[in-house]
Amino acid sequence: MAQLRIALAQTNPTVGDLSGNAGKLVAWTRDAADRGAHLVVFTEMFLTGYPVEDLVLRTSFVDASIRALRETAARLRDEGLGELPVVVGYVDRAGLAPRVGQPKGAPLDAAALLHRGEVVTCTAKHHLPNYGVFDEYRYFVRGDRLPVFRLHGVDVAVAVCEDLWQEGGPVSVVGRAGAGLLVVPNASPYEKEKDDVRLELCARRAREAGCALVYANQVGGQDELVFDGDSLVVDASGELVARAGQFREELLTVDLDLPVSDAEPGRYPFDAGDGSTITVERLVLSSEPVPPYEPEPPVVAERLDLHAEVYSALVLAVRDYVAKNGFRSVILGLSGGIDSALTATIASDAIGPDRVHVVLMPSRYSSDHSLADAEELVRRQGVNARVVPIADIVDAFEKEIELSGLSAENLQARVRGMILMGLSNEHGHLVLTTGNKSELATGYSTLYGDSAGGFAPIKDVPKTMVWELSRWRNEHGDPSFLLRAERPVPENSITKEPSAELRPDQRDTDSLPPYEVLDRLLDDYVEKDMGSRELIEAGHAPELVARVIRLVDLAEYKRRQYPPGPKITPKNFGRDRRLPITNRWRETT
Amino acid sequence: MAQLRIALAQTNPTVGDLSGNAGKLVAWTRDAADRGAHLVVFTEMFLTGYPVEDLVLRTSFVDASIRALRETAARLRDEGLGELPVVVGYVDRAGLAPRVGQPKGAPLDAAALLHRGEVVTCTAKHHLPNYGVFDEYRYFVRGDRLPVFRLHGVDVAVAVCEDLWQEGGPVSVVGRAGAGLLVVPNASPYEKEKDDVRLELCARRAREAGCALVYANQVGGQDELVFDGDSLVVDASGELVARAGQFREELLTVDLDLPVSDAEPGRYPFDAGDGSTITVERLVLSSEPVPPYEPEPPVVAERLDLHAEVYSALVLAVRDYVAKNGFRSVILGLSGGIDSALTATIASDAIGPDRVHVVLMPSRYSSDHSLADAEELVRRQGVNARVVPIADIVDAFEKEIELSGLSAENLQARVRGMILMGLSNEHGHLVLTTGNKSELATGYSTLYGDSAGGFAPIKDVPKTMVWELSRWRNEHGDPSFLLRAERPVPENSITKEPSAELRPDQRDTDSLPPYEVLDRLLDDYVEKDMGSRELIEAGHAPELVARVIRLVDLAEYKRRQYPPGPKITPKNFGRDRRLPITNRWRETT
Repeated sequence: MAQLRIALAQTNPTVGDLSGNAGKLVAWTRDAADRGAHLVVFTEMFLTGYPVEDLVLRTSFVDASIRALRETAARLRDEGLGELPVVVGYVDRAGLAPRVGQPKGAPLDAAALLHRGEVVTCTAKHHLPNYGVFDEYRYFVRGDRLPVFRLHGVDVAVAVCEDLWQEGGPVSVVGRAGAGLLVVPNASPYEKEKDDVRLELCARRAREAGCALVYANQVGGQDELVFDGDSLVVDASGELVARAGQFREELLTVDLDLPVSDAEPGRYPFDAGDGSTITVERLVLSSEPVPPYEPEPPVVAERLDLHAEVYSALVLAVRDYVAKNGFRSVILGLSGGIDSALTATIASDAIGPDRVHVVLMPSRYSSDHSLADAEELVRRQGVNARVVPIADIVDAFEKEIELSGLSAENLQARVRGMILMGLSNEHGHLVLTTGNKSELATGYSTLYGDSAGGFAPIKDVPKTMVWELSRWRNEHGDPSFLLRAERPVPENSITKEPSAELRPDQRDTDSLPPYEVLDRLLDDYVEKDMGSRELIEAGHAPELVARVIRLVDLAEYKRRQYPPGPKITPKNFGRDRRLPITNRWRETT
Repeated sequence: MAQLRIALAQTNPTVGDLSGNAGKLVAWTRDAADRGAHLVVFTEMFLTGYPVEDLVLRTSFVDASIRALRETAARLRDEGLGELPVVVGYVDRAGLAPRVGQPKGAPLDAAALLHRGEVVTCTAKHHLPNYGVFDEYRYFVRGDRLPVFRLHGVDVAVAVCEDLWQEGGPVSVVGRAGAGLLVVPNASPYEKEKDDVRLELCARRAREAGCALVYANQVGGQDELVFDGDSLVVDASGELVARAGQFREELLTVDLDLPVSDAEPGRYPFDAGDGSTITVERLVLSSEPVPPYEPEPPVVAERLDLHAEVYSALVLAVRDYVAKNGFRSVILGLSGGIDSALTATIASDAIGPDRVHVVLMPSRYSSDHSLADAEELVRRQGVNARVVPIADIVDAFEKEIELSGLSAENLQARVRGMILMGLSNEHGHLVLTTGNKSELATGYSTLYGDSAGGFAPIKDVPKTMVWELSRWRNEHGDPSFLLRAERPVPENSITKEPSAELRPDQRDTDSLPPYEVLDRLLDDYVEKDMGSRELIEAGHAPELVARVIRLVDLAEYKRRQYPPGPKITPKNFGRDRRLPITNRWRETT
């Protein structure tokens, strides 16, 4: 057996920022060297950021990725870090002749080994995920090799993300190739209540391959996706050895005892069990084990509980969306209700209350407690606030066109949306919308009204969880939250009955079932794709099933025009749920 | 040789309307029987409509499709049509065990043969397109068979759409299976300037297989897609024999002389040349050739020229979007400029001027000719019109918040959007937006302002083509257009210099290059994915390249929130162009 200290670089790249990401790679490699690491593993497509979507179809972008990889290898050597091998993800190309349906330029979701100033070897993802948030058949062609490099006597194999999840392919060959360690760069997004599927998967693959496994995952917000990190290491028996924290950057080091190999270098084809042949490319960096040293005690971060996890995901998503889009401040309408209160709190935690601007926009139907509760939040958090009454503007519209009922309600919501967009255009704030998932799913919101804005922090949070998160935040904090206030959410906003206040004495329950009932039904219908018969069998009231399905299916159009927002479940609407708009299928008939 | 009369049912299904589509199938089969056809071929997924997107992941929907297929077979028999074989597309399932990444329920893009009240055999698409508008790896699993049924002595093979476009798979087996005819149900969307690729493809495949080929294509608008029909038949030498019209429903019949077969029924595996095995399933409906009869002269419809084709696509798209969504009328803002004039004209042609409502919304910056040109269009077309001045509403906003420059311009556009949305909510009209592709690509439009609405008829039409189509329409008509006016577009709207009129003496060229220059550059950058170096090499001015790329990349966010509109090019923005919003890649650096 031989010792190796592996560093997992759980980092937050920015899509397209090749020089910024490369600079971070060098800095983190220096940290890893300082901590005595023998190998550094960065995440999937770290050099380009992930996901790059259509950028990958541009020749100039793939050229730049390949060039950045070579330059980074040379720069590591020039800065005295050339002896420390680095595994990093980037975009390469397969050099295939064009054909109908093949992505332009035949791009590869690749990973390379950098050592002594050179790109020593590379590989590419074999299994291309094309479900959920992934569209990779659109963007990539398959890789067909498994590099195995000997480092201080230990044979280290490299595979990319999805190849771990599917049967067959490169990971199925690792055992037969006799590798002593499998390292896997990943960009695996957060999803709530996933249990511990990644750990179970890594443990299973480690046992199958009979070797230790290093799983390095991206962290950070990228538009609708939030990557949670949670990188981990298991030994050959599948036991958890080390684990990084969630929702934070971390250089995790781990000391492993690994088997020594003396297999011959060369290229060896293997039947990969999925109809393909994987070529194992075996090469030697160094055969001599490192002199024995005292291992560090392993770090195993505690996992967050459900509410801490979701709240942290939302804060990180807002922080990165603001920063990566180059905004300095956000603006939102504060109604006194719980949705805008929680949104403001998340924003204050993400970028600090001094960069959060709220607008109180009372109408003729606003209750006294609305303004008072909004003002109480402003007082507690210290955000920037102004009051803009909307009555005179609504009157000006109603002088020109006659609107009644729902049309008149929508008008008020749209006047508020226009005020926020006007202030955004004038002062450069990013507009945050405050709609929650229950509203959005049922269409209980106004197109171009409360849905107008640039980012929707709680669009994937059901109303019942909006309350839970507000209560949780009043009891808990985290060093990464920038808001220092005690109990930042006014209690009255949490406990009062929800109302849109667009007409006298309006209550959400005038139009919707109680949220505890609605949210359970939405989860079964939207996330689990149950049909009406299954929903009724699962215990939902038949007339409610019919009503809610109708609302959800009709709201499809509105959801398509909703701004992006952090994703914490399989389906957060908008781009995720794809239904034809002109569509006569009725689940209830 | 034996004669057969084949009927191609070039029809317009509605997604999800299983009973409506089935009813149409029966009616068209009766027509085909009346015309003496021996076989009727409907289009891909005709029974469910195409594309069904996420509906296919619902168990209840796939169940309903399979049930509708069986019921339709029985109904044909019950109505005396059981002897006439029908090939029709529908959704089936493969019955595979679930696994990670496999679409829920393992759906199939299937086609079946109905005869004597039974589903006699079926097949499913083998090559799943996942480029351009197609996402089929997300929705379907692959088929692996090629049914060949003997009809009056002729062996007829059935394959689905994309299988014609790709090498290998079922179509590569047709020749070896000795089929005398290949019939292919399709749902192939329209794209301008595609030349005659479908005919070339059919001719090539017919020659490769050594048999005649029947290509039946869907017609109609389905959200952003427009299917053009253009169904065709080639003989075994690849010569065009018959062709249906474009953008209209048509039952095309053709008489063919085809070889007689006496091969043994049974199942025969073939290596399909793409790593898969395709099972040929040979069965016999009838061996006796039909008695000789006098063939009808073949119908070969003339193809439309570019402008007729594009204009017809837009009219059909608007007509079907309105009808399939259950609207009775549309509303739009009429400025006097060419974009809204063309949009109104398309709408009048699509649903008739009596169902088109226009609103003239002059501001303090509107010129006299704007109102006059708008009024002239109203007079020529006879659409419903009203005038709503916006000055007082804008003043009411400006009393509450201070807006300058672009923020004040956006406010005016948003007030107009709110008026249209208010009238839409109040009276049930569908709001049409009037933005063209050049504006949309460069972000020269206001989010929640002129981009607010339900359908965007000219969102994929560059400004230079907006003028061309307007001139074309003033010179041409078509029996399918519902507007009977002569020269419906006022000449002054076509010839005057374009202006947004959001500030005094504003001209589009204050912010944008001349449209002839801009549109060529947009085509190279957006449709052809050229990088900045390639663009400069192609002759575009370097400073213009830098400026336009910056505009286009920054406008990505706005485009995502734009409503759907008919698609006539590979990329009409919105869902088609997928770029990360937080993204630091700069094509120009």
